[in-house]
Amino acid sequence: MTGGRRGTVLALSGGVGGAKLALGLVHALAAEGAPAADLLVLANTGDDFEHLGLHISPDIDTLLYALSGRDDAQRGWGRADETWHFMAALRELGGQDWFQLGDRDLALHVERTRRLRAGETLSEVTGAVSAKFGIDARVLAMTDDPVRTRVECAQGWMGFQEWFVGARCEPVVRSLDFAGAQAARPNPHAMEALADPGLRAVIICPSNPLLSIGPILAMPALREALAACRAPVVAVSPIIAGQAVRGPTVKLMGELGLPATAAGVAQGYAGLIGGYVLDEADAHAAAALPHLATVALPTLMTTLQDRIHVAGAALALADRMAVGRVEA
Amino acid sequence: MTGGRRGTVLALSGGVGGAKLALGLVHALAAEGAPAADLLVLANTGDDFEHLGLHISPDIDTLLYALSGRDDAQRGWGRADETWHFMAALRELGGQDWFQLGDRDLALHVERTRRLRAGETLSEVTGAVSAKFGIDARVLAMTDDPVRTRVECAQGWMGFQEWFVGARCEPVVRSLDFAGAQAARPNPHAMEALADPGLRAVIICPSNPLLSIGPILAMPALREALAACRAPVVAVSPIIAGQAVRGPTVKLMGELGLPATAAGVAQGYAGLIGGYVLDEADAHAAAALPHLATVALPTLMTTLQDRIHVAGAALALADRMAVGRVEA
Repeated sequence: MTGGRRGTVLALSGGVGGAKLALGLVHALAAEGAPAADLLVLANTGDDFEHLGLHISPDIDTLLYALSGRDDAQRGWGRADETWHFMAALRELGGQDWFQLGDRDLALHVERTRRLRAGETLSEVTGAVSAKFGIDARVLAMTDDPVRTRVECAQGWMGFQEWFVGARCEPVVRSLDFAGAQAARPNPHAMEALADPGLRAVIICPSNPLLSIGPILAMPALREALAACRAPVVAVSPIIAGQAVRGPTVKLMGELGLPATAAGVAQGYAGLIGGYVLDEADAHAAAALPHLATVALPTLMTTLQDRIHVAGAALALADRMAVGRVEA
Repeated sequence: MTGGRRGTVLALSGGVGGAKLALGLVHALAAEGAPAADLLVLANTGDDFEHLGLHISPDIDTLLYALSGRDDAQRGWGRADETWHFMAALRELGGQDWFQLGDRDLALHVERTRRLRAGETLSEVTGAVSAKFGIDARVLAMTDDPVRTRVECAQGWMGFQEWFVGARCEPVVRSLDFAGAQAARPNPHAMEALADPGLRAVIICPSNPLLSIGPILAMPALREALAACRAPVVAVSPIIAGQAVRGPTVKLMGELGLPATAAGVAQGYAGLIGGYVLDEADAHAAAALPHLATVALPTLMTTLQDRIHVAGAALALADRMAVGRVEA
């Protein structure tokens, strides 16, 4: 894992799957001797919402917990060693209990909300929490402006969490909207990185391409900067043998008429990516992607070693693309 | 304990000491066969404050927990079987941790704040929580308007909780202010009760007369209605043999130049009360209060039976005053 190119790596990430790869990138870069601050993780904020008067940023939280070793690996979200006494008491009060908030997790939402109300930006709060958590990689909110993912179902438009958590992704989705994305100013550190000749790679994490990466790419300035970026852009497939590791990716792609396959995801990133990491089970799909540099390997990230392995493969593919020694 | 007069009993209450007597009143009235709704507990809201973006009503909370059996008897505040994982996580984030918020307790603050922001009044929220907690007595916010107790110390004005909790009551107090009290509209149910010929008694609980009862009496309309009230008004001394059972009553009275004795408290209520329940250790003080009907008994409320006994004595004194059979 040594001998990679140096420079900033910008990862675009949603929650769980993205956080797994981001942690792999942290370790892969560390193994190269690269400073942790070389890694920028641009987090989706389209899932953010106000709940119980609290500003909740699910994907940022998942990244903060995962990159600081505070995540609950079994549950896949929230903090390890979590307790649920707040929720029990809220239920007793007849409060809104459809969104689970652990006692320890709650502190992050309360503190973030307090700081936002005091005038700090989401980026500032995220940076402060990263520092407190001892995270050296740079977790970035995709924007400090409000972007809110909404899904259109038979019964009308629903807020993302209302659909995702409240309705367990069950209502059939007709269309998606990322309200505010057109006007949102992308995180300036991400924009600088994309314009920087020293950018080593952009890695699109194996997150839901529509719901997690979609809001990031829905910001016109960011999408244009990514398309114009001279560094290698590599996506990692979130689909393995026609199944998403987690979450409603396949269901949603199907409902929106998109091929819910590893190749389909890559085609959705057409014009943006030059490289693609896909699972060995989908190696055959590479033939359908002749314009992309691809690498196939086991991509299911169960252990930390798995994460480092996939991250290393993505970085290696990007480095090969950069020096023109790509083997398709 | 049977055979008392019927009618509404209005108790003026702060937190811990007031809640003990209020619980005693609930049981004393039940023993008479009186409906629980005959008891109105008008709670001080001068201690209310915004903390971490949450509206906290310490005295109302203490009453709600005590009257529903959810209180922590040992600690004296907050909920029984409480856990502190939120606080630990908040501390880890560098958040403001000077005010302790238990995991279960937090649900009440979050839910109250959510409802207030949604447009409900503090009275409506208090009523809703009382119902959820199965409290049949009527816990009333002294007002739905903001009243905020402040203390003037050598270093200037401090918010009440800043002084009480943050500075552990240590700074010497020069004066008190109940900001907003002049303009605050007292709880209409309390005002109706005071004007009702059927009012059986007003009981001023053994709460801090300056900090807990003071804000209630600082509302001009309520003070006038109390002074004009035809029902017996009985205070229960919060001081036993020159010591407050709990809290800074004695320190504060001394700093403000008031005699920190059972008689001193009664004199502070001059013009408002006609009866006074004091501890047997202070029985001698009754001689200094010839204008009051008094009764002396053990007033330390450790057990539930103690509470019922003191409450029953206060009610009995009020009833004797009402029928003109007062033995001074």
